[in-house]
Amino acid sequence: MRRGRLITLEGGEGAGKSTQARRLASWIADAYEVDVVVTREPGGAPGAEAIRELVVAGATDRWDPGTEVLLHVAARREHVLRRICPALAEGCWVICDRFSDSTRAYQGIVQGAGLDFVDGIGRLAIGMLRPDLTFLLDLPVGMGLARAENRGTTNRYERMGEAFHERLRDAFLTIASKETDRIKVVDASGSEDEVAGRLGSEVSRRWPIP
Amino acid sequence: MRRGRLITLEGGEGAGKSTQARRLASWIADAYEVDVVVTREPGGAPGAEAIRELVVAGATDRWDPGTEVLLHVAARREHVLRRICPALAEGCWVICDRFSDSTRAYQGIVQGAGLDFVDGIGRLAIGMLRPDLTFLLDLPVGMGLARAENRGTTNRYERMGEAFHERLRDAFLTIASKETDRIKVVDASGSEDEVAGRLGSEVSRRWPIP
Repeated sequence: MRRGRLITLEGGEGAGKSTQARRLASWIADAYEVDVVVTREPGGAPGAEAIRELVVAGATDRWDPGTEVLLHVAARREHVLRRICPALAEGCWVICDRFSDSTRAYQGIVQGAGLDFVDGIGRLAIGMLRPDLTFLLDLPVGMGLARAENRGTTNRYERMGEAFHERLRDAFLTIASKETDRIKVVDASGSEDEVAGRLGSEVSRRWPIP
Repeated sequence: MRRGRLITLEGGEGAGKSTQARRLASWIADAYEVDVVVTREPGGAPGAEAIRELVVAGATDRWDPGTEVLLHVAARREHVLRRICPALAEGCWVICDRFSDSTRAYQGIVQGAGLDFVDGIGRLAIGMLRPDLTFLLDLPVGMGLARAENRGTTNRYERMGEAFHERLRDAFLTIASKETDRIKVVDASGSEDEVAGRLGSEVSRRWPIP
């Protein structure tokens, strides 16, 4: 049933994921002449957005990390069933700002729930849906947090402190090192145009433009 | 670490679970001279009550059944970690109005998520915590729904229709038939006093009053 491609963008706060997701979508739509859906996690479907409110707001210690995994995977299941899979089945490409690797890095590694726990829940709840390509937008933690602060309001994850975000960067790089075929690490410290160019060139390398 | 006992009350809407939970708690506190915590699911801890709002409100088809399992188990994990386990460790008895068997009956069997799915998520997220004793308060569906309606506002589950609740009653009885040691089916169609008497006599049969 699946005909489109799923590309996910991962990384810490302020890495430019949402901006690059939009730019990549319009570049792909032009280059490949396909419909592209841009979406984000947690969220992307009505129920998932309601769950999002529970995890991005409130005190940093509001949830046990294992509970937080269950909430993220619940939101992901709604998003996958009601938005991502229908779009892929119609032949759309889907660009998603954060996906399973964020849960693996944030809750699995840094918050201590464990990768086995995250992957075990994920296998049961999401099954075999795996991104065709994942970009890890990597940049120094101080630069990312400064960009995130410039956006104004900070969410629960952004308030977790610099040491947390250093460990998060390491966690993402570790995850990427285990799946080098799927995950492409991209230096996100350059200009918007530079980063967009890197993403587009990797996509066209994998899937030659017709 | 666990010194108290966990007793859960299960059954459809309007079976008298919350009333009987309170009565059983005060009877046990007197008879065994122990502290008793009365709690309920979904809910029973601050985060779990926030998740409760997502599942008891809104349209009956608001969630995919598998997502609903993840939300119930997320709420249960908060409840178990932050309220039930600490109380049991202090030697309290805990009486809980609904627990895992409700998720197994509602979402697992009637809503179609599957018992294997519910139990698989539960094993990962809650581990080995199992009630010492479960009462299934059983009564004809029409009688239960009439009692629930008399309470005034109806929640999302109560609005699922009579056929749903007939299947739910069967599901609970099937679950009880598989674990006759743990689950005691109690006729809940009698008066409050009669039902309370049945619960007390079963508890004292299992654990002789000192």
